[in-house]
Amino acid sequence: MDDVAGMGFALAEAQASYDAGGVPVGAALVGHDGSVVGVGHNRRVQDANPLSHGETQCMMNVGRRASYADLVMYTTLAPCMMCAGTIVQFGIPRVVVGEAANFPGELDFLRARGVNVVVLDHKPCIELMAKFIAEKPELWNEDIGVAPDA
Amino acid sequence: MDDVAGMGFALAEAQASYDAGGVPVGAALVGHDGSVVGVGHNRRVQDANPLSHGETQCMMNVGRRASYADLVMYTTLAPCMMCAGTIVQFGIPRVVVGEAANFPGELDFLRARGVNVVVLDHKPCIELMAKFIAEKPELWNEDIGVAPDA
Ligand SMILES: [Ca+2]
Ligand SMILES: [Ca+2]
Ligand SMILES: [Zn+2]
Ligand SMILES: [Zn+2]
Repeated sequence: MDDVAGMGFALAEAQASYDAGGVPVGAALVGHDGSVVGVGHNRRVQDANPLSHGETQCMMNVGRRASYADLVMYTTLAPCMMCAGTIVQFGIPRVVVGEAANFPGELDFLRARGVNVVVLDHKPCIELMAKFIAEKPELWNEDIGVAPDA
Repeated sequence: MDDVAGMGFALAEAQASYDAGGVPVGAALVGHDGSVVGVGHNRRVQDANPLSHGETQCMMNVGRRASYADLVMYTTLAPCMMCAGTIVQFGIPRVVVGEAANFPGELDFLRARGVNVVVLDHKPCIELMAKFIAEKPELWNEDIGVAPDA
Protein backbone atom coordinates (compact mmCIF):
# COMPACT_ATOMS: atom_id res chain seq x y z
CA MET A 1 0.00 0.00 0.00
CA ASP A 2 1.14 3.53 -0.75
CA ASP A 3 2.12 5.24 2.52
CA VAL A 4 -0.13 8.25 1.99
CA ALA A 5 -3.06 5.90 1.32
CA GLY A 6 -2.23 3.94 4.48
CA MET A 7 -2.07 7.18 6.45
CA GLY A 8 -5.59 7.94 5.23
CA PHE A 9 -6.97 5.15 7.43
CA ALA A 10 -5.09 6.50 10.46
CA LEU A 11 -6.21 10.07 9.75
CA ALA A 12 -9.86 9.03 9.45
CA GLU A 13 -9.54 7.55 12.96
CA ALA A 14 -7.96 10.74 14.28
CA GLN A 15 -10.77 12.81 12.77
CA ALA A 16 -13.40 10.51 14.32
CA SER A 17 -11.83 11.04 17.75
CA TYR A 18 -11.69 14.80 17.22
CA ASP A 19 -15.37 14.81 16.22
CA ALA A 20 -16.21 12.93 19.45
CA GLY A 21 -14.38 15.47 21.62
CA GLY A 22 -11.34 13.26 22.10
CA VAL A 23 -7.61 13.39 21.38
CA PRO A 24 -7.20 13.24 17.59
CA VAL A 25 -4.52 10.59 17.15
CA GLY A 26 -5.31 7.58 14.98
CA ALA A 27 -3.52 4.48 13.78
CA ALA A 28 -3.90 1.56 11.39
CA LEU A 29 -2.09 -1.76 11.06
CA VAL A 30 -1.77 -2.91 7.46
CA GLY A 31 -0.54 -6.21 6.04
CA HIS A 32 1.89 -6.77 3.18
CA ASP A 33 -1.05 -7.43 0.84
CA GLY A 34 -2.48 -3.99 1.66
CA SER A 35 -5.27 -5.34 3.85
CA VAL A 36 -6.18 -3.22 6.86
CA VAL A 37 -5.89 -5.62 9.81
CA GLY A 38 -7.12 -3.10 12.36
CA VAL A 39 -7.58 0.56 13.16
CA GLY A 40 -7.98 2.59 16.35
CA HIS A 41 -7.86 6.01 17.91
CA ASN A 42 -7.02 7.60 21.23
CA ARG A 43 -9.91 6.99 23.65
CA ARG A 44 -8.57 8.78 26.76
CA VAL A 45 -11.72 10.91 26.89
CA GLN A 46 -14.18 8.42 25.43
CA ASP A 47 -13.23 5.50 27.73
CA ALA A 48 -11.46 7.41 30.54
CA ASN A 49 -8.48 5.15 29.73
CA PRO A 50 -5.13 6.94 29.84
CA LEU A 51 -3.37 4.03 28.11
CA SER A 52 -5.59 4.29 25.04
CA HIS A 53 -3.43 6.13 22.51
CA GLY A 54 -4.01 5.70 18.78
CA GLU A 55 -1.31 3.07 18.49
CA THR A 56 -2.24 1.03 21.58
CA GLN A 57 -5.97 1.14 20.80
CA CYS A 58 -5.23 -0.07 17.27
CA MET A 59 -3.22 -2.99 18.66
CA MET A 60 -5.97 -3.84 21.17
CA ASN A 61 -8.45 -3.90 18.33
CA VAL A 62 -6.21 -6.23 16.31
CA GLY A 63 -5.99 -8.50 19.34
CA ARG A 64 -3.97 -11.67 19.91
CA ARG A 65 -1.76 -12.89 17.05
CA ALA A 66 1.15 -15.31 16.92
CA SER A 67 3.24 -12.56 15.32
CA TYR A 68 2.94 -8.89 14.31
CA ALA A 69 6.09 -9.01 12.14
CA ASP A 70 4.08 -8.88 8.88
CA LEU A 71 2.37 -5.58 9.74
CA VAL A 72 3.11 -1.91 9.14
CA MET A 73 1.88 0.64 11.70
CA TYR A 74 0.52 3.92 10.38
CA THR A 75 0.08 6.58 13.05
CA THR A 76 -0.87 10.23 12.61
CA LEU A 77 1.57 11.44 15.31
CA ALA A 78 5.05 10.40 16.43
CA PRO A 79 4.67 7.63 19.06
CA CYS A 80 5.21 8.44 22.74
CA MET A 81 7.40 6.22 24.97
CA MET A 82 4.49 3.90 25.85
CA CYS A 83 3.57 3.38 22.21
CA ALA A 84 7.18 3.09 21.05
CA GLY A 85 7.83 0.46 23.73
CA THR A 86 4.71 -1.40 22.66
CA ILE A 87 5.77 -1.36 18.98
CA VAL A 88 9.16 -2.84 19.94
CA GLN A 89 7.67 -5.38 22.35
CA PHE A 90 5.30 -6.72 19.67
CA GLY A 91 7.96 -6.76 16.96
CA ILE A 92 6.32 -4.40 14.47
CA PRO A 93 9.12 -3.83 11.94
CA ARG A 94 7.99 -0.61 10.22
CA VAL A 95 6.22 2.54 11.45
CA VAL A 96 4.95 5.30 9.17
CA VAL A 97 4.46 8.54 11.13
CA GLY A 98 2.15 11.26 9.86
CA GLU A 99 4.03 14.05 11.59
CA ALA A 100 6.54 14.79 14.33
CA ALA A 101 6.14 18.58 14.23
CA ASN A 102 3.60 18.89 17.06
CA PHE A 103 5.25 16.16 19.19
CA PRO A 104 8.74 14.74 18.64
CA GLY A 105 7.98 11.29 20.03
CA GLU A 106 10.52 8.52 20.47
CA LEU A 107 11.71 8.09 16.89
CA ASP A 108 15.39 7.73 17.91
CA PHE A 109 14.47 4.98 20.37
CA LEU A 110 12.49 3.12 17.70
CA ARG A 111 15.37 3.33 15.23
CA ALA A 112 17.90 2.23 17.88
CA ARG A 113 15.75 -0.87 18.41
CA GLY A 114 15.79 -1.68 14.71
CA VAL A 115 12.41 -0.32 13.65
CA ASN A 116 12.19 1.22 10.18
CA VAL A 117 10.64 4.66 10.76
CA VAL A 118 9.37 6.97 8.03
CA VAL A 119 8.00 10.47 8.74
CA LEU A 120 5.61 11.70 6.07
CA ASP A 121 5.33 15.30 7.30
CA HIS A 122 1.70 15.02 6.19
CA LYS A 123 -0.01 18.42 6.22
CA PRO A 124 -3.54 17.17 7.12
CA CYS A 125 -2.11 15.38 10.18
CA ILE A 126 -0.17 18.49 11.27
CA GLU A 127 -3.18 20.77 10.88
CA LEU A 128 -5.65 18.56 12.76
CA MET A 129 -3.25 18.14 15.68
CA ALA A 130 -2.33 21.85 15.81
CA LYS A 131 -6.04 22.78 15.86
CA PHE A 132 -6.67 20.37 18.75
CA ILE A 133 -3.68 21.58 20.79
CA ALA A 134 -4.81 25.21 20.37
CA GLU A 135 -8.37 24.33 21.40
CA LYS A 136 -7.67 21.96 24.32
CA PRO A 137 -4.15 22.53 25.69
CA GLU A 138 -4.96 21.00 29.10
CA LEU A 139 -6.25 17.74 27.60
CA TRP A 140 -3.22 17.59 25.32
CA ASN A 141 -0.81 18.10 28.24
CA GLU A 142 -2.57 15.37 30.19
CA ASP A 143 -2.24 12.99 27.25
CA ILE A 144 1.52 13.50 26.92
CA GLY A 145 2.09 13.40 30.67
CA VAL A 146 2.83 17.06 31.35
CA ALA A 147 1.52 17.83 34.84
CA PRO A 148 -0.64 20.97 35.30
CA ASP A 149 1.98 22.75 37.41
CA ALA A 150 4.90 21.85 35.15
CA MET B 1 4.89 0.72 52.91
CA ASP B 2 7.38 -2.08 53.31
CA ASP B 3 8.35 -3.40 49.87
CA VAL B 4 7.53 -7.02 50.69
CA ALA B 5 4.11 -5.93 51.96
CA GLY B 6 3.54 -3.93 48.77
CA MET B 7 4.55 -6.94 46.69
CA GLY B 8 1.87 -8.93 48.50
CA PHE B 9 -0.84 -6.95 46.68
CA ALA B 10 0.83 -7.60 43.32
CA LEU B 11 1.30 -11.30 44.10
CA ALA B 12 -2.36 -11.71 45.08
CA GLU B 13 -3.26 -10.35 41.62
CA ALA B 14 -0.85 -12.75 39.94
CA GLN B 15 -2.34 -15.67 41.85
CA ALA B 16 -5.89 -14.62 40.88
CA SER B 17 -4.87 -14.62 37.20
CA TYR B 18 -3.23 -18.05 37.57
CA ASP B 19 -6.37 -19.42 39.22
CA ALA B 20 -8.44 -18.11 36.27
CA GLY B 21 -6.18 -19.84 33.72
CA GLY B 22 -4.38 -16.64 32.77
CA VAL B 23 -0.81 -15.33 32.80
CA PRO B 24 0.17 -14.90 36.47
CA VAL B 25 1.69 -11.41 36.51
CA GLY B 26 0.22 -8.85 38.89
CA ALA B 27 0.90 -5.26 39.85
CA ALA B 28 -0.12 -2.62 42.38
CA LEU B 29 0.32 1.16 42.49
CA VAL B 30 0.82 2.48 46.01
CA GLY B 31 0.92 6.05 47.30
CA HIS B 32 3.43 7.59 49.71
CA ASP B 33 0.95 7.16 52.55
CA GLY B 34 0.79 3.41 51.88
CA SER B 35 -2.64 3.52 50.28
CA VAL B 36 -3.19 1.11 47.40
CA VAL B 37 -4.38 3.33 44.53
CA GLY B 38 -5.00 0.44 42.15
CA VAL B 39 -4.15 -3.16 41.32
CA GLY B 40 -4.34 -5.28 38.20
CA HIS B 41 -3.21 -8.46 36.52
CA ASN B 42 -2.45 -9.75 33.06
CA ARG B 43 -5.73 -10.37 31.21
CA ARG B 44 -4.40 -11.62 27.84
CA VAL B 45 -6.47 -14.79 28.21
CA GLN B 46 -9.39 -13.38 30.19
CA ASP B 47 -10.05 -10.38 27.85
CA ALA B 48 -8.22 -11.60 24.70
CA ASN B 49 -6.24 -8.34 25.07
CA PRO B 50 -2.53 -8.73 24.26
CA LEU B 51 -1.73 -5.30 25.76
CA SER B 52 -3.09 -6.28 29.16
CA HIS B 53 0.02 -7.06 31.20
CA GLY B 54 0.00 -6.76 34.97
CA GLU B 55 1.51 -3.29 34.88
CA THR B 56 -0.66 -1.87 32.08
CA GLN B 57 -3.86 -3.36 33.52
CA CYS B 58 -3.02 -1.83 36.90
CA MET B 59 -2.55 1.59 35.27
CA MET B 60 -5.81 1.24 33.33
CA ASN B 61 -7.57 0.44 36.58
CA VAL B 62 -6.06 3.53 38.24
CA GLY B 63 -7.28 5.61 35.29
CA ARG B 64 -6.76 9.28 34.48
CA ARG B 65 -4.71 11.36 36.95
CA ALA B 66 -2.97 14.70 36.64
CA SER B 67 0.27 13.00 37.72
CA TYR B 68 1.58 9.54 38.65
CA ALA B 69 4.77 10.93 40.22
CA ASP B 70 3.59 10.17 43.77
CA LEU B 71 3.15 6.44 43.13
CA VAL B 72 5.32 3.34 43.44
CA MET B 73 4.71 0.43 41.05
CA TYR B 74 4.96 -3.07 42.48
CA THR B 75 5.08 -5.80 39.85
CA THR B 76 5.68 -9.51 40.32
CA LEU B 77 7.87 -9.81 37.18
CA ALA B 78 10.44 -7.57 35.47
CA PRO B 79 8.56 -5.25 33.06
CA CYS B 80 8.70 -5.92 29.33
CA MET B 81 9.44 -3.11 26.82
CA MET B 82 5.76 -2.12 26.56
CA CYS B 83 5.38 -1.86 30.32
CA ALA B 84 8.76 -0.16 30.82
CA GLY B 85 7.86 2.41 28.17
CA THR B 86 4.51 2.98 29.86
CA ILE B 87 6.16 3.49 33.27
CA VAL B 88 8.51 6.10 31.76
CA GLN B 89 5.74 7.81 29.76
CA PHE B 90 3.59 8.24 32.87
CA GLY B 91 6.47 9.38 35.06
CA ILE B 92 6.32 6.68 37.70
CA PRO B 93 9.53 7.30 39.67
CA ARG B 94 10.04 3.95 41.44
CA VAL B 95 9.41 0.33 40.46
CA VAL B 96 9.72 -2.62 42.83
CA VAL B 97 10.15 -5.88 40.87
CA GLY B 98 9.31 -9.24 42.43
CA GLU B 99 11.76 -11.15 40.29
CA ALA B 100 13.83 -10.99 37.11
CA ALA B 101 14.94 -14.64 37.15
CA ASN B 102 12.24 -15.99 34.82
CA PHE B 103 12.31 -12.93 32.52
CA PRO B 104 15.03 -10.25 32.48
CA GLY B 105 12.78 -7.41 31.37
CA GLU B 106 13.96 -3.90 30.58
CA LEU B 107 15.52 -2.91 33.90
CA ASP B 108 18.52 -1.23 32.26
CA PHE B 109 16.21 0.88 30.09
CA LEU B 110 14.19 1.95 33.13
CA ARG B 111 17.33 2.94 35.03
CA ALA B 112 18.73 4.82 32.02
CA ARG B 113 15.51 6.84 31.99
CA GLY B 114 15.90 7.74 35.65
CA VAL B 115 13.53 5.24 37.26
CA ASN B 116 14.54 3.87 40.67
CA VAL B 117 14.36 0.07 40.26
CA VAL B 118 14.58 -2.46 43.08
CA VAL B 119 14.54 -6.23 42.50
CA LEU B 120 13.31 -8.18 45.53
CA ASP B 121 14.20 -11.67 44.22
CA HIS B 122 11.01 -12.75 45.98
CA LYS B 123 10.73 -16.54 46.14
CA PRO B 124 6.89 -16.77 45.95
CA CYS B 125 6.96 -14.68 42.73
CA ILE B 126 9.71 -16.84 41.21
CA GLU B 127 7.93 -20.08 42.05
CA LEU B 128 4.50 -19.05 40.73
CA MET B 129 5.99 -17.86 37.43
CA ALA B 130 8.19 -20.95 37.01
CA LYS B 131 5.18 -23.21 37.60
CA PHE B 132 3.15 -21.33 34.96
CA ILE B 133 5.97 -21.39 32.37
CA ALA B 134 6.40 -25.14 32.85
CA GLU B 135 2.65 -25.72 32.51
CA LYS B 136 1.85 -23.37 29.59
CA PRO B 137 5.01 -22.60 27.61
CA GLU B 138 3.10 -21.61 24.45
CA LEU B 139 0.96 -19.05 26.28
CA TRP B 140 4.06 -17.68 27.97
CA ASN B 141 5.91 -17.33 24.65
CA GLU B 142 2.92 -15.54 23.14
CA ASP B 143 2.85 -13.12 26.08
CA ILE B 144 6.50 -12.16 25.70
CA GLY B 145 6.30 -11.98 21.91
CA VAL B 146 8.25 -15.10 20.98
CA ALA B 147 6.74 -16.44 17.74
CA PRO B 148 5.86 -20.18 17.58
CA ASP B 149 8.55 -20.93 14.99
CA ALA B 150 11.27 -18.89 16.69
CA1 LIG C 1 1.17 9.15 19.97
CA1 LIG D 1 5.79 -8.00 32.73
ZN1 LIG E 1 1.40 6.93 22.83
ZN1 LIG F 1 4.64 -5.96 29.98
